[in-house]
Amino acid sequence: MSARPDTAVAQIVFADLQALLQRIFVRHGCRAEVAQALAFNCASAQRDGAHSHGVFRIPGYVSTLESGWVDGQAVPAVENLASGYVRVDAKGGFAQPALAAARELLVAKARSAGIAVLAIHNSHHFAALWPDVEPFADEGLVALSVVNSMTCVVPHGARQPLFGTNPIAFAAPCAGSDPIVFDMATSAMAHGDVQIAARKGELLPEGMGVDNKGEPTCDPQAILDGGALLPFGGHKGSALSMMVELLAAALTGGNFSFEFDWSQHPGAKTPWTGQLIIVIDPAKSVGNRFAERSRELVRQMQAVGLQRMPGERRFREREQSAKEGVTLTVAELEQLQGLAG
Amino acid sequence: MSARPDTAVAQIVFADLQALLQRIFVRHGCRAEVAQALAFNCASAQRDGAHSHGVFRIPGYVSTLESGWVDGQAVPAVENLASGYVRVDAKGGFAQPALAAARELLVAKARSAGIAVLAIHNSHHFAALWPDVEPFADEGLVALSVVNSMTCVVPHGARQPLFGTNPIAFAAPCAGSDPIVFDMATSAMAHGDVQIAARKGELLPEGMGVDNKGEPTCDPQAILDGGALLPFGGHKGSALSMMVELLAAALTGGNFSFEFDWSQHPGAKTPWTGQLIIVIDPAKSVGNRFAERSRELVRQMQAVGLQRMPGERRFREREQSAKEGVTLTVAELEQLQGLAG
Repeated sequence: MSARPDTAVAQIVFADLQALLQRIFVRHGCRAEVAQALAFNCASAQRDGAHSHGVFRIPGYVSTLESGWVDGQAVPAVENLASGYVRVDAKGGFAQPALAAARELLVAKARSAGIAVLAIHNSHHFAALWPDVEPFADEGLVALSVVNSMTCVVPHGARQPLFGTNPIAFAAPCAGSDPIVFDMATSAMAHGDVQIAARKGELLPEGMGVDNKGEPTCDPQAILDGGALLPFGGHKGSALSMMVELLAAALTGGNFSFEFDWSQHPGAKTPWTGQLIIVIDPAKSVGNRFAERSRELVRQMQAVGLQRMPGERRFREREQSAKEGVTLTVAELEQLQGLAG
Repeated sequence: MSARPDTAVAQIVFADLQALLQRIFVRHGCRAEVAQALAFNCASAQRDGAHSHGVFRIPGYVSTLESGWVDGQAVPAVENLASGYVRVDAKGGFAQPALAAARELLVAKARSAGIAVLAIHNSHHFAALWPDVEPFADEGLVALSVVNSMTCVVPHGARQPLFGTNPIAFAAPCAGSDPIVFDMATSAMAHGDVQIAARKGELLPEGMGVDNKGEPTCDPQAILDGGALLPFGGHKGSALSMMVELLAAALTGGNFSFEFDWSQHPGAKTPWTGQLIIVIDPAKSVGNRFAERSRELVRQMQAVGLQRMPGERRFREREQSAKEGVTLTVAELEQLQGLAG
């Protein structure tokens, strides 16, 4: 699923896109550090062809900020709980600045203890998850993150939605190449991709979701209009989605995907939940060999015929964007310029 | 898939089954602690109705021990690497005694650092994975474990098998009830269940595996005879299986599922790989509230119509076994008695 524009396209240098998005976030109530974190995340997704989390998300960000549902000025409070444990209260703001505020401490703990966990609560996450983990792999660390979202997935064997799309992201270094990074919704499809399909009037493959009567449907709009998604992979994906609720909400002290009530905030779009990040330093047990071993696994996957590694498309799109600029439609660029004022 | 005997059944008290299995392991070359760990694990699986990892496995254990491929006398070497990191060299023995040797230290670290990791390498794992994690939840801890196995799964998008069935197991405490525990192969089906279906002459559902030409098949024997399994959930399950290789092998210093060569050991059955266990103490960030929150999630899952929690069947079977004894066939019991000498 891709949001490849079918109309006139524009190319913009990554730094310029980032600056443009930063102006939008500042203009709509975010303090500088928050605007910087969100702009970098969103511009990165657009640059890497991850369009469901690229500039497509900006109207949603603006809407949720204007609704008063999320606090763009929030200053996260970092607690140093133990030699392997950092907790952050995002204070009703976004998760990315909470991660940014705790990141240095988290990395120091992972390097010292061998493993460390960052538990973020009282946070809003409206972005792709891979940008949160990839930088750890760039530093030679292995990272795993989960975030719960908002009720839109029917647990396997149940009748009504309860879980969020609850993604899992993983990153690991790989010698002599880009890191291995994946980011998967535990729903059969990411919510952003359903929205994009609905906007484009496309049908979905079978098995993605149900309508408001709980009947299977391939119509993305029926899923958005009171319907729901299914987990990927039946009872297994459903169990993983449950695990994400437990790790990202119960363990952090955040809300479950079904707990928050934004009815008093028309225009609210962002799930008010929690996020967990686990970081491991492979040097503790295998010295510097991890990245070489990782490379060997990739080599063998290619030898059995794998054409494209998980996440590889993003790195190829990133290369292309570095040469030609980041692609978006002229209409999107004009909309962004309007929002930036 | 279940191995419910269709012939005469016997009931045996759990402790007696455990003692019987222990005698078999000792008789076939295991030292006492190893025999104890394996017997408890295998008897527990049989007791809980997890028949693909119950006494069905005993002939395989005996065969692999007799082949000299695994060392039943191995004494694991525990290394205390950092405040959150324990490493164990299983010395070519089984993974369960390696976990047993490091368990106390691992728990102490998790309680002190908030999170700790146990990296086992040079180990053989031939059992269900949930018995490794469930006891942590009984102590109020959250645990996640992965183990890689042996080449029998075709990566999504590839042509030949490379990954193992590579299970993921998770356990978390739940107030006023059994813990939440699941254990899933990242293959579409567990290898033991394929073996059971083949033995019973049953066909498999579609999408489980391919034959030795790479063509889709529903014949379990065709999967076992040079064919292979597919990952569950397409590219997502495949990415998780890759993650298990990285965590259980690259990170621990163990073999990938495709690396070991047992051709000099006819009768060898057990994968010689690695295992990773991550343990988190929820009390560090949310005090004693975790199990209550976990309970609330279960309550809401039931409210949307879920009839059976992941792993719940095992606890129901366990209750029944406590009342009536552990069920196996008379033929199985006689076979076990023969192996015990």
